[in-house]
Amino acid sequence: MSLHRLTEKVQGQYHYTIGPYAKPVLTIKSGDTVVVQTLDAFGGKIIDENTKPSRVLEFPNVNPLNGPILIEGAEKGDALKVTIESITPRGPQPRGTTCLIPFFGGLTGIPKSPTLQDPLPEIVRKVNITEQEILWSDRIRFPYDPFVGTIGTSPELDSINSLTPDSHGGNMDLPDVRPGNTIYLPVRSSGGRLFLGDCHATQGDGELCGVAIEFPTETTIRVDLAKNLNIKWPRIENKDFIMSVGSSRPMEEAAKIAYMDLIEWMVEGFGFDKYEAYFVLTQIARVRLGNMVDPNYTIAASINKRYLLP
Amino acid sequence: MSLHRLTEKVQGQYHYTIGPYAKPVLTIKSGDTVVVQTLDAFGGKIIDENTKPSRVLEFPNVNPLNGPILIEGAEKGDALKVTIESITPRGPQPRGTTCLIPFFGGLTGIPKSPTLQDPLPEIVRKVNITEQEILWSDRIRFPYDPFVGTIGTSPELDSINSLTPDSHGGNMDLPDVRPGNTIYLPVRSSGGRLFLGDCHATQGDGELCGVAIEFPTETTIRVDLAKNLNIKWPRIENKDFIMSVGSSRPMEEAAKIAYMDLIEWMVEGFGFDKYEAYFVLTQIARVRLGNMVDPNYTIAASINKRYLLP
Amino acid sequence: MSLHRLTEKVQGQYHYTIGPYAKPVLTIKSGDTVVVQTLDAFGGKIIDENTKPSRVLEFPNVNPLNGPILIEGAEKGDALKVTIESITPRGPQPRGTTCLIPFFGGLTGIPKSPTLQDPLPEIVRKVNITEQEILWSDRIRFPYDPFVGTIGTSPELDSINSLTPDSHGGNMDLPDVRPGNTIYLPVRSSGGRLFLGDCHATQGDGELCGVAIEFPTETTIRVDLAKNLNIKWPRIENKDFIMSVGSSRPMEEAAKIAYMDLIEWMVEGFGFDKYEAYFVLTQIARVRLGNMVDPNYTIAASINKRYLLP
Amino acid sequence: MSLHRLTEKVQGQYHYTIGPYAKPVLTIKSGDTVVVQTLDAFGGKIIDENTKPSRVLEFPNVNPLNGPILIEGAEKGDALKVTIESITPRGPQPRGTTCLIPFFGGLTGIPKSPTLQDPLPEIVRKVNITEQEILWSDRIRFPYDPFVGTIGTSPELDSINSLTPDSHGGNMDLPDVRPGNTIYLPVRSSGGRLFLGDCHATQGDGELCGVAIEFPTETTIRVDLAKNLNIKWPRIENKDFIMSVGSSRPMEEAAKIAYMDLIEWMVEGFGFDKYEAYFVLTQIARVRLGNMVDPNYTIAASINKRYLLP
Repeated sequence: MSLHRLTEKVQGQYHYTIGPYAKPVLTIKSGDTVVVQTLDAFGGKIIDENTKPSRVLEFPNVNPLNGPILIEGAEKGDALKVTIESITPRGPQPRGTTCLIPFFGGLTGIPKSPTLQDPLPEIVRKVNITEQEILWSDRIRFPYDPFVGTIGTSPELDSINSLTPDSHGGNMDLPDVRPGNTIYLPVRSSGGRLFLGDCHATQGDGELCGVAIEFPTETTIRVDLAKNLNIKWPRIENKDFIMSVGSSRPMEEAAKIAYMDLIEWMVEGFGFDKYEAYFVLTQIARVRLGNMVDPNYTIAASINKRYLLP
Repeated sequence: MSLHRLTEKVQGQYHYTIGPYAKPVLTIKSGDTVVVQTLDAFGGKIIDENTKPSRVLEFPNVNPLNGPILIEGAEKGDALKVTIESITPRGPQPRGTTCLIPFFGGLTGIPKSPTLQDPLPEIVRKVNITEQEILWSDRIRFPYDPFVGTIGTSPELDSINSLTPDSHGGNMDLPDVRPGNTIYLPVRSSGGRLFLGDCHATQGDGELCGVAIEFPTETTIRVDLAKNLNIKWPRIENKDFIMSVGSSRPMEEAAKIAYMDLIEWMVEGFGFDKYEAYFVLTQIARVRLGNMVDPNYTIAASINKRYLLP
Repeated sequence: MSLHRLTEKVQGQYHYTIGPYAKPVLTIKSGDTVVVQTLDAFGGKIIDENTKPSRVLEFPNVNPLNGPILIEGAEKGDALKVTIESITPRGPQPRGTTCLIPFFGGLTGIPKSPTLQDPLPEIVRKVNITEQEILWSDRIRFPYDPFVGTIGTSPELDSINSLTPDSHGGNMDLPDVRPGNTIYLPVRSSGGRLFLGDCHATQGDGELCGVAIEFPTETTIRVDLAKNLNIKWPRIENKDFIMSVGSSRPMEEAAKIAYMDLIEWMVEGFGFDKYEAYFVLTQIARVRLGNMVDPNYTIAASINKRYLLP
Repeated sequence: MSLHRLTEKVQGQYHYTIGPYAKPVLTIKSGDTVVVQTLDAFGGKIIDENTKPSRVLEFPNVNPLNGPILIEGAEKGDALKVTIESITPRGPQPRGTTCLIPFFGGLTGIPKSPTLQDPLPEIVRKVNITEQEILWSDRIRFPYDPFVGTIGTSPELDSINSLTPDSHGGNMDLPDVRPGNTIYLPVRSSGGRLFLGDCHATQGDGELCGVAIEFPTETTIRVDLAKNLNIKWPRIENKDFIMSVGSSRPMEEAAKIAYMDLIEWMVEGFGFDKYEAYFVLTQIARVRLGNMVDPNYTIAASINKRYLLP
């Protein structure tokens, strides 16, 4: 069980697309731990509240990711089991950034759903972040509740930009990818090719304006290889629940994917009849909205493990 | 402050549509309490596990509602403030019903999103309900966590079937309409014309198969008139949070409606700047999926009151 | 075969909701003809280009309809067969109106899909209409290509506002409801209760800004009763094609409904195997987008009759 | 002006993803013509009506494309102007294939919108194709109306599977990409990197079951470079109309994209005021549904050139 450090220097060039074509930055063994120096979603370019996002951001070069990390022995048909061990802030204060970006977010026309209306104003907010809280204003402080916004494995042939979540994981913006929880990701290319980044210090359900409290971190993950765990969509687990994650448009499809996968998990992993699982989830499941702002929306469906006991 | 009893006998004919055309069953004053004998969503027609829903249900005569209740002095531009005081089960055991109905539910083709595939099997489950728990099976018991599935006020001109949620409330299937919470509903016709019914003993987020644990109840509500509280969509409040409710298709529109209304509430009720509200919700709001199975999907967005302090 | 005249005077009060509650204005026999004096969608309130729609329109009192017309002998399970015989303009020039209404239309945030952006400007255009053409500008003239924007029969229990298309017909804004074509509408209440109005002198597919060239007309229809023709959605027929109409949200559901109904028509009416119909439509069907701006979107799917020959 | 032949042999390995990573097969100059030997969407693997698609197709290796073709001098910010000159069938009869593939198509649950229902049956149909007609059955013959189903240029960083249409073009399944018409595609990487394939001998609007009459062809295209024609989405032009193409989910977004782009074209290319363009399209535009079965739906909006005259 080795410990690896994927510093900014080791990483070198960060990536804006998740696929089989970039050169690996690290090769690890199942069970190894990696400390990853992630950048914020803007690559640190929004340095103060006077910076215009539309001037400094150069699409598609946004949301930089660390990786790809190869896991020895990982082959198509396996899964990676990534446990988030800790997320600590790094860099000088104010470390946190949120902003309104023209034609981006949940309550504005966007290029894929355009309106003829004028854009909302560009506004940048920089905030101090400690391991206890986010100092939003004199009046409001948010608890420090960090998670990994973007994490995924490579598709077999495609390369998917780091803003889009799909069956490979990606930009799910799901707060359950948090310390203490384990995410399973499908292996579709040799070595799995794990990418991650885009940590958030806190985020509401849906990430309404499109930008959470973005910050650079030191994120520690442990990666295990689950041979032949042939999953179709990301899954999350902790001591209390199991959760399946769907990403699609329109939003109801993300919910359907998540629930369908959770039924399959209950059938294959816990011996449920499929209609029994359908009934039980109807009565007791919980749903989490990850994002309502990315090219695909993300919804997770979960069930408490107490209902899975034999 | 009077106490009224809207028994099955007083109700007489239950209603399957929410509008300005049915004869009122009760007229009350602001501040009065009403004990309502609700039927289950099937009007009690699914009596055992051998009953075929497709044989006994006669659309559009499903989901019977009590009402309309008139509130003296309520006029267009006001709101009703309905506090759910208690929900107790009634009727002989097994009181609870859930089932699979052909071409209805979250993981099947439906008439509005048809497929050429054969329907899922019809299955009925009858369960015992106490005020402590629902006895699902030898292995699984669900906590008793009741709420009102359908509650709404009359539109000005339209009459909307009791299966559809919209800006008037209706079949939201939102677990937050529970004892201890208060729901605000828009008054659009003289007297407000309140309808309610369709209580659930428990329900998971989204009401996946389309049918929660349906049961007949005695539901106690207190109704206050909020003059000139000109709301566009239902709102819910308790000691901890404020919540706005949107219902539409596709699902992202329900989320947008709920968030837009919550921003307006924060601006008008708590002095927020609209972009400040947009930012704060992005970081700390919570979203609840009510249903993903009705003619409109329902999503509620909420914020903890601690972030609203001056 | 009688001829009836449903003048403004005979109509008296126009209607803004389609349901079983309004008093009939006319009772006819199968095979009768009715000349209907329709108002424009604004009830004539937008009198010149300086009128602000947001000042003169009082929702939900927009899109006035003639009716209800009862057809003797029509009962639930039948269909009305309404042939559009002619549509002629009436009233003083400029008779035609189109406009931009705040937060209404295809390329703006709307109340059901809200944005925080400012509304588009209000703009009114009044145009002269003859039976040959619409004089849009010095540069552009559109051919006179009139049709009935809103036509429908009453639901069994509900009353649906005149802006919403659904399985009863309603505000489909489908150019194929034009002179020479026949539309079939389901009978769901005694007498059928036919409503119509909202004629357009021309309209592009989707009715992009939400307002076509609206105008008052004299519309002549012939109504036949099709006993036991138990249709679920509106259907249109002329000498060249048969067409099924779906209305829903999101738009793909409208397309699925239309195609599903067209398969059923081919199976029941023309002896096709259902998968053969599915294949043949895949290769040769045509789709028409009615509206992309109403509470439900409308899509029609059609097939040329030459592919239906035995 | 050279003529190039991109035969099966010159192509060698066909591609299943459109991106910047594959080795170019041909480099041409602006104005050159290329005769391309395309495969059918199944790479010829469905050889007869007894072949099970689910056995022989290996996702994601479906819908093979020719390319990438480099155009000298093409740089980010330019556009390729590809004129379809002719499409002729090749290969032994029966050359044409359509089929039902489990959990794929417009009227079935699919992985991104799953249902618990059983799949539709697998059915394969092989048909003879001449340059005059498709011999569907004794009773039905379809006119030969061929087009290119998939054509696109490389994204800057991503590689997108050949089944998905988006702003780069791709699997639009739009019958207007037919002989005589010209499609403009955005250049986002050096040389443009043009891919194409997936020709259809005929197709109905929406490609209902997901599979048109697929066939191998010899497709002749002429490629011109339009320097600095910085388009966002594919555009099509012929002597009669201009057309913009949008691809997204839900379907209404594809329509909004297409119309927004067409407004921009009318403003920048023909001197329209943007609201004038919005009004004119409302009255006279036409919409074509390309596909309702791919990961993004495709809709094109067009206007007849007679309304664009100065």
